[in-house]
Amino acid sequence: MSEQPGLSYAAAGVDIDAAHQAMKGVAAMVRSTATPDTLSELGSFGGLYRVPRDAKQPVLVASTDGVGTKLKVAFMAGRHGTVGEDLVNHCVNDILVQGAKPLFFLDYVGVGKLEPGVVEELVSGVARGCRANGCALLGGETAEMPDMYTAGEYDLAGTIVGMVEEDRVLDGRAIRPGDAIVAVASNGLHTNGYSLARRIVFDRMGLGVDDAFPEEEGSVADVLLRVHKSYLRSLYPLIEAGRIRGLAHITGGGLVDNVPRILPDGAAARFDLSSWTVPSVFRVLRREGGVARDEMFRAFNMGVGMAAVVPAPDADAVVRDLAAAGETAWIAGEIVPGARDVILSGE
Amino acid sequence: MSEQPGLSYAAAGVDIDAAHQAMKGVAAMVRSTATPDTLSELGSFGGLYRVPRDAKQPVLVASTDGVGTKLKVAFMAGRHGTVGEDLVNHCVNDILVQGAKPLFFLDYVGVGKLEPGVVEELVSGVARGCRANGCALLGGETAEMPDMYTAGEYDLAGTIVGMVEEDRVLDGRAIRPGDAIVAVASNGLHTNGYSLARRIVFDRMGLGVDDAFPEEEGSVADVLLRVHKSYLRSLYPLIEAGRIRGLAHITGGGLVDNVPRILPDGAAARFDLSSWTVPSVFRVLRREGGVARDEMFRAFNMGVGMAAVVPAPDADAVVRDLAAAGETAWIAGEIVPGARDVILSGE
Repeated sequence: MSEQPGLSYAAAGVDIDAAHQAMKGVAAMVRSTATPDTLSELGSFGGLYRVPRDAKQPVLVASTDGVGTKLKVAFMAGRHGTVGEDLVNHCVNDILVQGAKPLFFLDYVGVGKLEPGVVEELVSGVARGCRANGCALLGGETAEMPDMYTAGEYDLAGTIVGMVEEDRVLDGRAIRPGDAIVAVASNGLHTNGYSLARRIVFDRMGLGVDDAFPEEEGSVADVLLRVHKSYLRSLYPLIEAGRIRGLAHITGGGLVDNVPRILPDGAAARFDLSSWTVPSVFRVLRREGGVARDEMFRAFNMGVGMAAVVPAPDADAVVRDLAAAGETAWIAGEIVPGARDVILSGE
Repeated sequence: MSEQPGLSYAAAGVDIDAAHQAMKGVAAMVRSTATPDTLSELGSFGGLYRVPRDAKQPVLVASTDGVGTKLKVAFMAGRHGTVGEDLVNHCVNDILVQGAKPLFFLDYVGVGKLEPGVVEELVSGVARGCRANGCALLGGETAEMPDMYTAGEYDLAGTIVGMVEEDRVLDGRAIRPGDAIVAVASNGLHTNGYSLARRIVFDRMGLGVDDAFPEEEGSVADVLLRVHKSYLRSLYPLIEAGRIRGLAHITGGGLVDNVPRILPDGAAARFDLSSWTVPSVFRVLRREGGVARDEMFRAFNMGVGMAAVVPAPDADAVVRDLAAAGETAWIAGEIVPGARDVILSGE
């Protein structure tokens, strides 16, 4: 054994200098997200964030999420600049439904080999998402793990921490039969259903990322990488004004699994499927994949990014205000007596 | 194409029911970590945690980390119950060095296929770590991603959020030449240097996980999976009492890269290598891998889990109090005039 050369960390596949280099590359992006309450700079062990001084009885709301196999589409297309924004917006929506506004975000990147530029591109998306949501990118970890990830691939996850006053936590407790459900449109798959969608688009339909997506403007990559919408700017003013009784972010599990999370005992949600036209991307996926209707509604958001429960008399005004804020919104159903389930009717 | 059966989410490799089942399996573990300020239960979109009512000007300290390729050893040994504890303790130490006590934790598991019991075993380790550190397991995400991870493998990352009063943030600003450096012993590799260690142990030495580790009690798996220590219970009382001027968690990059993170301008850290015997696991790795000394000190902690800077006259008392708290601690060096670097002398 003595004839073997001595081992080094770099020879074992971990390049600490490359990691330092990547960190330098993202430092300016991270700084661009700082808020007046951000107290730390990149490089300290933990990120420091002051609880806003005007908070009375603050409750922290935190959520961790990943991007799922939407990443696989990014790998195929060689576009790494938007999945970070998907991640931030997903997390922002997840705490918004409890009435919280974002304070800060931390990202995790697991990668087999640090390739110059890729982490920077990834983090640029995270930073853009953070800036757009007034959220500080407080820290993160990029872990180089030889033989954990395929060359050219990575996983991306993130954690958001936001704040809401304790007496303003939105938890659906006020929801009553007779309330209206206002749907706010998604702009595509957001970050859910990609394992099924990829199977249909790439295997069944035999498309490549650069092919035109049927019945859509743009390529397969354009359509499948459309950035998950953040609903902070349009919905937070309505939450602050106390006009929303419950809010569900339509992620994995679709309307069927996510709306029950906010329903109180004795209430169910009935959606009238004739109230909207399911966007063409979902219709193409359903047709080409031969997917059952109920399966579609569990795998995909089917055109609904957020479902807001409001008192029926206020529903038209909420729809109008959301339209004024740039959203497509409509009355998509109502709360009925029931056992915390979802009824899909009218199709 | 019409003869092909219709696709479902499960056929695409994502089993929402299996995910629900796994969530049920961990619910009791999650509940066991709740503190009086935990306001949410598993299943809500975000986790809710009240900022402790007695906080004056609270600063949140947050950190995200992974377990790195220590996971690979867990895969080889089929032991999934301790890496979660590694992760929590690593994160606890990362915010402790800024004076913060943990509030809550969120975990992220990326996995190719949910195998019954594995996620439960993983999360049991996270929950045990949380309980031991008085930290609520507030949320998490388990993402099933077919064709992202090798069968039987997963990645595990986590985010901790803790709190410190603004006027008690520990940042090393008070460090002066003449101060003593007290080393607090690690109990093994903690979570760093595993890519190099695996290369040496499995490739060069040709050992399997069940073989005896040379010069150690226990198998290769026992030695390499020893749980990363949390220093919260032993060090926090000293921090609270204002007896520590700066604290560095010795993680990736070793003493050489981590100690400078807390040094003010004009100061350097001189370690006297004759003040301790490097634990045998590192000596074996160095010898068998033919690794250069400086490379060892950058890849591994070399027996030092934490480095605390204290006023020289107080150093003996700090060592004594740490010993009384169950730690092995010693005066390992001193702060000297310099350019925020680390000098390794005496070997």
